[in-house]
Amino acid sequence: MRFFEDIQVGQRRELESFTFTADRIRKFAGQFDPQRFHLDEEEAKKSLFGGLAASGWHVGSVCMKLLVADGQRQAEQAAARGEKIAIWGPSPGFRELRWIKPVLAGDTISFFSEVESLRTSSTRPEWGILQARNTGTNQRGELVFSMLATAFVPRRNSSSGGAS
Amino acid sequence: MRFFEDIQVGQRRELESFTFTADRIRKFAGQFDPQRFHLDEEEAKKSLFGGLAASGWHVGSVCMKLLVADGQRQAEQAAARGEKIAIWGPSPGFRELRWIKPVLAGDTISFFSEVESLRTSSTRPEWGILQARNTGTNQRGELVFSMLATAFVPRRNSSSGGAS
Repeated sequence: MRFFEDIQVGQRRELESFTFTADRIRKFAGQFDPQRFHLDEEEAKKSLFGGLAASGWHVGSVCMKLLVADGQRQAEQAAARGEKIAIWGPSPGFRELRWIKPVLAGDTISFFSEVESLRTSSTRPEWGILQARNTGTNQRGELVFSMLATAFVPRRNSSSGGAS
Repeated sequence: MRFFEDIQVGQRRELESFTFTADRIRKFAGQFDPQRFHLDEEEAKKSLFGGLAASGWHVGSVCMKLLVADGQRQAEQAAARGEKIAIWGPSPGFRELRWIKPVLAGDTISFFSEVESLRTSSTRPEWGILQARNTGTNQRGELVFSMLATAFVPRRNSSSGGAS
């Protein structure tokens, strides 16, 4: 992960892709969103989705997982270069969480994260505040998922948030 | 679940409560949000959270699970009364997803859902569109979570969306 000073508006990172298999869709739905169109293929065909569809919370949680994995990869690369590692703070929220198209069984979603804005915090001078647009695109190039995330990012010369 | 015609703005339902134990927090985080403040109590104490905190996606997914359970309970009650059951459609998205305060290990969150707006759909006359404010409040009465959800709700006299 990077420090606030290393980040510019417009920077875009490609995260990993993820295939939403029918098994994964049903497993998540069974735990957190047991609606018929997330659990049963025959019922799902009759729904507005037209087929077994992933829970939106599943799509969002997978995006979160890939964001964290990307951050950890960046931290490992920084460590390998002998650099100080930035440890990001928690997110106060997400806005404009949108499920634009269904994610159906077998779809492979490519996730991206693009920096939309950066500002410093007056109440917490050790942290900067970043807004990023995180999106998912299916194998046909259609945008299926979008959310605007806010995160606390440590500043390079702060005492907290860094690890050697 | 109810039909569009049975719902009024301002109706508020109390969903089940849920206790975010350390085990549940770590299990979800291990799968979907493996950040240190969701996994390790000692590291979490040093973070902005001040203690082991649930992933926001975990809080949202649990709220979803309790919304679905509440809908299924209503459907069972309607069936027991011999009424036609409304089967809700998918949600096109959530807005204003906010994690207002940390949900720490041991916190019990009470979830509520209140109808904010209702409108009919011109392109899909068989469905109404409902907006509900879903919230979570901890055992000290503090609001910790809020989101504005949109859902497709079947109209009573439509051919789809109903099951006898």
